[in-house]
Amino acid sequence: MTIDRQKAIETLFNPKSIAVIGASSTKGKLGNSVVRNIIDSGYEGRIFPINPKAEEILGLKVYRSVSAIAGHVDVAVIVIPARFVLSVVEECGKKGVTALVIITAGFKEIGHEGQEAEKKIVEVAEKYGMIVQGPNCLGIINTYAPYNASFSAGTPSKGSIAFASQSGALMTGILDWSLMEKIGFSKFVSLGNKAHLDEADFVEAFGKDPNSTFILLYIESVVDGRKFMKACREVVPKKPIFIVKSGVSAAGARAASSHTGSLAGSDTAYDVAFKQCGVNRAENMAELFDVASVFDDMHLPAGNRVAIVTNAGGPGIMTTDACEACGLEIAQLSQTTIELLQKELPPAASVYNPIDALGTAQPSDYALCIEAALRDENVDSVFVLVTPQAVTKEAETAKTLVESHRKYPGKPLVAVFMGGNSMVYPRIIMNDGGIPVFDFPERAVHALAQLYKYTVRRDNLKDDIVPTFKVDTKRVQKVMDSVRADGRSIMMGYESHEVAEAYGIPVARIRCATSSEEARQIAKDIGFPVVLKVASPDIVHKSDIGGIILGLETLQEVEDGFMQILANVKKHVPKAILYGIDVQEMVPKGKELIIGCSRDIQFGPLIMFGAGGIFVNYLKDIAFRLAPMSRADAGSLIGDTKMGALLVGVRGELPSDIPALEDTILKISQLVTDFEEIVELDINPVFAYEKGKGICAVDVKITIAGE
Amino acid sequence: MTIDRQKAIETLFNPKSIAVIGASSTKGKLGNSVVRNIIDSGYEGRIFPINPKAEEILGLKVYRSVSAIAGHVDVAVIVIPARFVLSVVEECGKKGVTALVIITAGFKEIGHEGQEAEKKIVEVAEKYGMIVQGPNCLGIINTYAPYNASFSAGTPSKGSIAFASQSGALMTGILDWSLMEKIGFSKFVSLGNKAHLDEADFVEAFGKDPNSTFILLYIESVVDGRKFMKACREVVPKKPIFIVKSGVSAAGARAASSHTGSLAGSDTAYDVAFKQCGVNRAENMAELFDVASVFDDMHLPAGNRVAIVTNAGGPGIMTTDACEACGLEIAQLSQTTIELLQKELPPAASVYNPIDALGTAQPSDYALCIEAALRDENVDSVFVLVTPQAVTKEAETAKTLVESHRKYPGKPLVAVFMGGNSMVYPRIIMNDGGIPVFDFPERAVHALAQLYKYTVRRDNLKDDIVPTFKVDTKRVQKVMDSVRADGRSIMMGYESHEVAEAYGIPVARIRCATSSEEARQIAKDIGFPVVLKVASPDIVHKSDIGGIILGLETLQEVEDGFMQILANVKKHVPKAILYGIDVQEMVPKGKELIIGCSRDIQFGPLIMFGAGGIFVNYLKDIAFRLAPMSRADAGSLIGDTKMGALLVGVRGELPSDIPALEDTILKISQLVTDFEEIVELDINPVFAYEKGKGICAVDVKITIAGE
Repeated sequence: MTIDRQKAIETLFNPKSIAVIGASSTKGKLGNSVVRNIIDSGYEGRIFPINPKAEEILGLKVYRSVSAIAGHVDVAVIVIPARFVLSVVEECGKKGVTALVIITAGFKEIGHEGQEAEKKIVEVAEKYGMIVQGPNCLGIINTYAPYNASFSAGTPSKGSIAFASQSGALMTGILDWSLMEKIGFSKFVSLGNKAHLDEADFVEAFGKDPNSTFILLYIESVVDGRKFMKACREVVPKKPIFIVKSGVSAAGARAASSHTGSLAGSDTAYDVAFKQCGVNRAENMAELFDVASVFDDMHLPAGNRVAIVTNAGGPGIMTTDACEACGLEIAQLSQTTIELLQKELPPAASVYNPIDALGTAQPSDYALCIEAALRDENVDSVFVLVTPQAVTKEAETAKTLVESHRKYPGKPLVAVFMGGNSMVYPRIIMNDGGIPVFDFPERAVHALAQLYKYTVRRDNLKDDIVPTFKVDTKRVQKVMDSVRADGRSIMMGYESHEVAEAYGIPVARIRCATSSEEARQIAKDIGFPVVLKVASPDIVHKSDIGGIILGLETLQEVEDGFMQILANVKKHVPKAILYGIDVQEMVPKGKELIIGCSRDIQFGPLIMFGAGGIFVNYLKDIAFRLAPMSRADAGSLIGDTKMGALLVGVRGELPSDIPALEDTILKISQLVTDFEEIVELDINPVFAYEKGKGICAVDVKITIAGE
Repeated sequence: MTIDRQKAIETLFNPKSIAVIGASSTKGKLGNSVVRNIIDSGYEGRIFPINPKAEEILGLKVYRSVSAIAGHVDVAVIVIPARFVLSVVEECGKKGVTALVIITAGFKEIGHEGQEAEKKIVEVAEKYGMIVQGPNCLGIINTYAPYNASFSAGTPSKGSIAFASQSGALMTGILDWSLMEKIGFSKFVSLGNKAHLDEADFVEAFGKDPNSTFILLYIESVVDGRKFMKACREVVPKKPIFIVKSGVSAAGARAASSHTGSLAGSDTAYDVAFKQCGVNRAENMAELFDVASVFDDMHLPAGNRVAIVTNAGGPGIMTTDACEACGLEIAQLSQTTIELLQKELPPAASVYNPIDALGTAQPSDYALCIEAALRDENVDSVFVLVTPQAVTKEAETAKTLVESHRKYPGKPLVAVFMGGNSMVYPRIIMNDGGIPVFDFPERAVHALAQLYKYTVRRDNLKDDIVPTFKVDTKRVQKVMDSVRADGRSIMMGYESHEVAEAYGIPVARIRCATSSEEARQIAKDIGFPVVLKVASPDIVHKSDIGGIILGLETLQEVEDGFMQILANVKKHVPKAILYGIDVQEMVPKGKELIIGCSRDIQFGPLIMFGAGGIFVNYLKDIAFRLAPMSRADAGSLIGDTKMGALLVGVRGELPSDIPALEDTILKISQLVTDFEEIVELDINPVFAYEKGKGICAVDVKITIAGE
């Protein structure tokens, strides 16, 4: 049965009736906490506690089973031991329940047996068209329904942030923290083992939810990379998504025989995926919640120009430094603002930005400066710094900030109250008044900068088309068949060059000669100079055994070279199977580049571009994108490297043929998308020539998967 | 009169008598706050409030002036209006006061007039052999004297941290914060305008102070770069110094006509100076105080191996990620520890590292795991993570941590209690018990990593000798005299090459020809091929006007080339003054490097090394050191670049002549140290050849200051 997951999640978010299977009257038991939370959160629908042995729980009538309920059940929350879950799921299916929230643990996380049990549950749920959240989760909270079907200690306050977390423990910590910091949430979803519903489903649902304007995720992995990217890509133009992705080190080493594979860290694909779909990756939870605390109350900034209002010079400088480091600009205040401040502030005050109202600044001085800045059309956001000086009225100043923000709510206003004990009460005033407040300038600046960066990412997301080049897929298939028939996975040079040619990639001509006579003929056809390279599946490092000779200029040299390589092979690797000797066109040198592809288990083909030759491993001037790519992706991929700047042309150097390079990157993107069997591909070097003169792939290596 | 500043600071730290000039009986006035703070801080010496109009202040007898005091006065705190300060300083001098703390503002910070007044005060103070702290400062606190001669609101608790700050406002914030977080300080010094005593003086004094084991500084600039480095270099082997240096953006652009000058940011010299003298630079105040909170109570870690104890998987993963990112290693627990945990913890617990005691973990489980980890010889530090789960006893667990730390105080123990309201009381327990506690893992890990990094920096500091090469300074002086006599500041090619030669730097031979005949002769002497370059002070970008011809192989080519360049100059820059045409040896190509020097206003000659040629501006693979340098400095300078790895020799490439390269760097270090007139120097490219084959400076540019 196909399920409209989104429609079902709507019901999960706003159920008219909830059954709690495993409800308990014993305080401290999860089955009791869940029922209590549903009641305490003010849920107005019907609640059906289910327990074969009880009559009444927390004043509610208890049912013996789901089937014993007369009316319809939208959501069933399951908190019974793991071994009973499958039969209950079947029962829920028969009853026609829409969504299951399986809190019960003891599935995939305990090993193979649990994983199998989990699979069966999903099969049964799908048979009946039900969606499943969990298992092994904390539950779900929708502050707008309102309802809290979780065993959390407390319910978050109502707000604009939708949060989904793969860690239940983290979630309880965050909830506790949010109650203290007065951060409001719209949805609070514990993902658990993600056996059925995953992060992508909830991103899509949060995207549609009118009460959620900001999406936060904590994940350790994604279930389906492509689905996740698609969901994010659709949501980001409307709402920011901030992610903490942990498990970077746990992911461990990946098999890597190619340059591209070894240079892509285990976490690179995630980074690239987030970037390509406009998701902001936070470095850690603190950053995520700094951003949340700013976002929960404030509009997005219209630009990056900030005003700083302070009562002390040092913190003003620190804030200026931090702004510059984060890409925020110190606004040039308008003449009107400057004149007003000159008129009203003491002469020693600084009326330029940062506005230093001096250590004697009173709440009214702060109000004057803040409101002038909020009115100023050259200012997009305002930072207010307060240090506890002799005559500072911290609490009164806090009230002033709240008042000023109410008057001019359109621009972000972020407060930094530096200090400890004397700032406790002022911070409460501001939290209550919806002003984000920090201890030190840097975190405040960083958080606001993240909001600004979202607006830039969002605006840069374009629905670019992935171009399709006319290619000869049959020719590629034929090469692959032949490689496989030969029992190999690594293509010979002439084979991989043929694949490149079939996709219209300019490539150094190459053919394999089995006799010196044939080598002479090929050299004549290709034209001098040529390169000879031994062609043997047994010889990987050709140059180490004298298997490569460069720069042969005459037929005689080709013949001598051919014999020399044969002799070298006989001497060093007498047992190597020899396919012949490749005769390759020796192309003129250009800018040395590398283009490659490895395959990420979650996100598919990961394309690499960068400085080639001996620089690859040492400079690591490389960047990545996931295929399939648009031309804009190819352009930004090149632009992300330092080599990109050299290709544009620097003093004394002509620009390189960037359009031809983009074409080649896009063709490779198409190739590895068309042929999933290609597990690794390296072109190193690719020579880029002057504008209009194209590029040339000099050495192509392709590895394919077994059948 | 020469002053033993350190001896005087000892008195400033521990005065037997204090005069407060400008003492007031009016609450709220600074002169009242200072007297009150001295009394309240428990000062046991004599206090002399001075005020011509009062009789008694806060129960103390008031004196009309310093001279009216019968006994000796160690410290005079001055809080009178700026215009009266000079005469009072004179009076203090006559009285024989040892140290002045000038709180009064209105000096350098208000402009030229204030600066002049400040200078006069220092002159008078020096005349009488007094030291001066400030002016425009908050005062000074020594919690061990104990005394608080400042107008701060409150006195910090006693602890091991010595703190000096250039911003008074920041200091009040920090003090307030420290009282809440229970961070203890030994000294609290407000530097003010640093007219006399500066950060270096206090670093030296903190280094000698037995009660200070950890030094924190907030500065916006240093007064004397060399003095500061010397002081730090002496203290760092004994005590860590952590610095926040702000004013990065405010420092603005520096004049930069050379590569080296333009590539060194305005803050580079500070970064390099801190590194070279083993000082840890914190990115911001939050980081500084995270480190302080860990350091205040804990020993330094003996190594980088950490154990993590948690009651939830997600935070454990986050901590692992953070450790890896910060250079901390997840310890491999000993067999004894693993067996103990296996025996005592539930079967589902993870007994490897991170140790996951599960969501059901009780305080006794925590104690078991923490103490096992603290005993384990494979573990250097322990992180404890607590999330507020259903059965978690947060406060009891906090007490357990304090207890375990008391039992095993030798290793750092850092707590992360994730959550808000439910963690408030547990945090108080830990702060009181001397356990640093954080909200989220990343900041905790980062702080501990900083302590570990200090131990590495300290151990790497070696008292290396700055080598002295035999050089011909007279020859250099002669070139300089001639350049100056010519009214120039930029040396001609043949001049700068001669300077390099005089310092034994291998350099492409070059001589200036004034006729084609002479050019032929020089070419014959040097040997073919040669390069011709126009020599004119008016032509900077020689290649743009056809002023350079490469690869001339015969006498005829030299003659033709000579005439060609003359013609090009005539055509493009007919008014240029021509000194002749340089004939230069065309040396074989090696690895292209750049070595340069610019001069920092605070720290002196800043040497740059990196990848040369067209890569300089785009790859920016460069690193810096301050001269004079030791051989170890030169080696680490090369090693700090990616080029360094290429020079060591990579697959298919022979190693380069690194000793010869180091020699050249050291000779340049000696040159720019010997000749302060050299304001900028660029050698680009320097070719490095194979090991044993040396290096060659191809193009040397030197700019000298006017006389």
